[in-house]
Amino acid sequence: MQEKAMVVSRRKVLNWIGVTAGAAAMYQAMSSLGFAAESNYQRDFALSGAPKGTRVLILGAGLAGMTAAYELRKAGYQVKVLEFNAKPGGRCWTLRGGDRFTELGGATQHCEFDKGLYLNPGPWRIPYHHHAVLDYCHKFGVALEPFIQVNYNAMVHSTKAFGGKPQRYREVQADFQGHVAELLSKAVNQHGLDQALTREDRERLLEVMRKWGALDASNAYKKSLETSMRRGFAVDDGGGLMPEAVASEPIDCKALLDSNLWQSIASGQEYEFQSSIFQPVGGMDMIAQAFQKQVNDLIHYNAKVTRIQQNDKGVTVTYQNSDGSGGAQQEQADWCVCTLPLSILGQLPVDVSAPMMSAIRAVPYESSIKVGLQFKRRFWEQDEHIYGGISYTDTPISKISYPSTDYGKQGKGVLLGAYIWGPNAYEFTAMSPQMRVQKAVEYGAQVHPQYPAEFENGIAVGWHRVPWTNGCYGLWTPETRQQHYKNLCQIDGRIVLAGEHASYIPAWMEGAILSSQDAIKRLHTHIIASAKAA
Amino acid sequence: MQEKAMVVSRRKVLNWIGVTAGAAAMYQAMSSLGFAAESNYQRDFALSGAPKGTRVLILGAGLAGMTAAYELRKAGYQVKVLEFNAKPGGRCWTLRGGDRFTELGGATQHCEFDKGLYLNPGPWRIPYHHHAVLDYCHKFGVALEPFIQVNYNAMVHSTKAFGGKPQRYREVQADFQGHVAELLSKAVNQHGLDQALTREDRERLLEVMRKWGALDASNAYKKSLETSMRRGFAVDDGGGLMPEAVASEPIDCKALLDSNLWQSIASGQEYEFQSSIFQPVGGMDMIAQAFQKQVNDLIHYNAKVTRIQQNDKGVTVTYQNSDGSGGAQQEQADWCVCTLPLSILGQLPVDVSAPMMSAIRAVPYESSIKVGLQFKRRFWEQDEHIYGGISYTDTPISKISYPSTDYGKQGKGVLLGAYIWGPNAYEFTAMSPQMRVQKAVEYGAQVHPQYPAEFENGIAVGWHRVPWTNGCYGLWTPETRQQHYKNLCQIDGRIVLAGEHASYIPAWMEGAILSSQDAIKRLHTHIIASAKAA
Repeated sequence: MQEKAMVVSRRKVLNWIGVTAGAAAMYQAMSSLGFAAESNYQRDFALSGAPKGTRVLILGAGLAGMTAAYELRKAGYQVKVLEFNAKPGGRCWTLRGGDRFTELGGATQHCEFDKGLYLNPGPWRIPYHHHAVLDYCHKFGVALEPFIQVNYNAMVHSTKAFGGKPQRYREVQADFQGHVAELLSKAVNQHGLDQALTREDRERLLEVMRKWGALDASNAYKKSLETSMRRGFAVDDGGGLMPEAVASEPIDCKALLDSNLWQSIASGQEYEFQSSIFQPVGGMDMIAQAFQKQVNDLIHYNAKVTRIQQNDKGVTVTYQNSDGSGGAQQEQADWCVCTLPLSILGQLPVDVSAPMMSAIRAVPYESSIKVGLQFKRRFWEQDEHIYGGISYTDTPISKISYPSTDYGKQGKGVLLGAYIWGPNAYEFTAMSPQMRVQKAVEYGAQVHPQYPAEFENGIAVGWHRVPWTNGCYGLWTPETRQQHYKNLCQIDGRIVLAGEHASYIPAWMEGAILSSQDAIKRLHTHIIASAKAA
Repeated sequence: MQEKAMVVSRRKVLNWIGVTAGAAAMYQAMSSLGFAAESNYQRDFALSGAPKGTRVLILGAGLAGMTAAYELRKAGYQVKVLEFNAKPGGRCWTLRGGDRFTELGGATQHCEFDKGLYLNPGPWRIPYHHHAVLDYCHKFGVALEPFIQVNYNAMVHSTKAFGGKPQRYREVQADFQGHVAELLSKAVNQHGLDQALTREDRERLLEVMRKWGALDASNAYKKSLETSMRRGFAVDDGGGLMPEAVASEPIDCKALLDSNLWQSIASGQEYEFQSSIFQPVGGMDMIAQAFQKQVNDLIHYNAKVTRIQQNDKGVTVTYQNSDGSGGAQQEQADWCVCTLPLSILGQLPVDVSAPMMSAIRAVPYESSIKVGLQFKRRFWEQDEHIYGGISYTDTPISKISYPSTDYGKQGKGVLLGAYIWGPNAYEFTAMSPQMRVQKAVEYGAQVHPQYPAEFENGIAVGWHRVPWTNGCYGLWTPETRQQHYKNLCQIDGRIVLAGEHASYIPAWMEGAILSSQDAIKRLHTHIIASAKAA
């Protein structure tokens, strides 16, 4: 007998469950609610109705500048962009084999990575709630792939604990949680929470801690197959008559607390690093390249701004070729969106009000170093079974991050061999690039002894030596925010600033883009109002 | 002046750090140590030296059967495989548009998914420590992409808590951790741990809890921008003069414990689900197809085994065409590797010892349901910003899993709309496929109200109605393991069993492959010994 084919269609189901009538309305309500709840980001951002012939000059073709260029042209403005580099993107930057980079001080590095391998010296991750970045990626067709932030099989390493032997993230995570659960259970049983909780709640809490912490029936966190189902086994389960699984021994509670390794397990819980988090396939500058396709014809490359003047008629920007050749040139416009980093802008003569100039000069730039290392093979996958993610170490390199792509591929690989902040970053900035690479290999070998045998070449970017930023990002404090932030963001005559430094999301591409959208939205409103008043 | 180019080579670094001599030896030692520590898996598994002309008949062309076929032919055996279906893979199976599936009871479903969309009714994830699966994927060129197990922006939903309103994973995760930290701090301050910890350790613990739990200076977990950096904001940070961020209100401690939602945040901590975890690009059966390329010529499809006989000379297997046509046929061999699920094997006349037959019949098969639902658009991404991952609900559908691929893509999408275990699975198995899909849409609408408006079509697989398995996987208990497992795995005359049921990793492809490797390794040794004895 031929079975009657069954096709479960939408129409049928809607009829069955009888919700057709209210569904669309309900969906509309929920959909807009869901979005509006957390973000001020305006999806499908668009301006329109620029007064005819109005010229806007944009300084800087990073993401803030290119966002402004893209949106302002769509709104009907005559747009030009001056960019210091020979290519756009600014800190949205990827280094590949064949690239060369000359830093302040004159050292030039030639990137020797094999084809397909890269380092993102600047931003390298896109959180799921960075709606503006994600929306432009989707709109411009930038393919995204998951960035693995948390890897339970990666290493956490302290030179001061466990004889310097790296532990696995899963071991520290499971054991910390287990010990906390055991301590809290102990406290409950020793009447430490009798005042805070009812008897019923205390019993419930004991039950919850047992499950959450993988405790045994007597509320202890102990070596067992159950705790190994969290922290990993001494010998894994197998098939057929392979040797049976062997439980692993948890780390002692006091040793774990003293090790400080527990600090490394929290990063994936922070809003900015929570799963899911993404990277563009092929390197972060795929985003810059996607913007470039939209606005390349507007950009004048290799133009180093040397002066910004304005009066009540317009803006005049003086620049020279980035290599110093060709003498002073000028560009005039009605309005200016300036996205130069404050670290650069503060060194220029700029006609803005005293409060804005104070703001520009009030924000120091953070120091940071990234080192990319190429190895002969992906030993972190082949030997250690670490596929993507980050290992943490208390040596100056701070982190080792494994590529979140090409898993299991034969051949060479590039990992992030150092991501350095704070005092160590200043120390590394002072070194030659060669020495930075050398140090990254040296410290990294404490986590992965394969380093010396497998290392091939490396490249090191110290952000305080990057000519177009003189630092990594604008370092606001609560005090400088209070005193200067609004002055920095106000439209000042015919000039408005944009970039991550003019945002509450410093160092992130989202900050640059949202800052730009907000600045041009206000500028556009202001221009239309000015045109009407005139 | 032309800067002198700097190339940081391996040789240079090795010279600098002066470790050349010991490096190779050190690496060798560490490398083998790292691997051997946790796994019995033998990389580069290979057998060789089969006695000339020895025939092995394999029953079943799932991953266990195809592993055996691939490895035994390489070892020099004459291999044949009998497979019930018209294609290989067994439970390593993917449903795509155009596929049809007839379940026990006769209902046939036609899959109507758009091109590129799919459901994996069986296995759908590959943990980082499933070395055998990963190695065959790498060897056979199966591309892998991360499976997003944990998504902090996904939903956790209880019909009995918060008026049935789904909460975000990040809120439950952060608040649970914060409340635990606050309770433990409170207990310390109320002398509940004075006996267990020294004064110094108690102070250290308070400091640790403050950081780990995002507590304030008075050790409280409260609404603040700091706790919102974990649980998410009421209003996110923005750029320029956008409205300032607004902190979100944590969930009350007692309400959270009572909700049971905290149970959903632990799954990503379990060894089998920890990051990083993978899926093949394009569907799980890419693995089956990769094996098929190696052994397709050995497989006789549409062959339903009806009897397995052996004597001291060899094995005779009787089969018929799967559609019942053509009468009884027979295949003879010297040895047999039988990978038929015990749920099937137990129904056949099989010449094995009483202990093995008891073992075969001692293992019931777990019930499970998966439902795939196609929607007009990827509303979970567009409206809710959920990219991959799993939402949890206490309704019978248990989970909703969003595709870990094509992030941000316009157009239609298929999600896993139900993954059902236990009593609910039996109830769903009893329903028609149509009704299962209907119920999945109905329950899912409690988590995503967009469901009714966006739903297009669906397909539902109830594993107890899958003709070639009669269930999902072998459900061992500690007691049946103790009594029967070794009897099941022993070579019985000329027959050895393999499959996930003959492993300590039930339901996982790794169990099937390791079981197969172990079985054929023992069989090969036994065959060589027998040949020598003869």
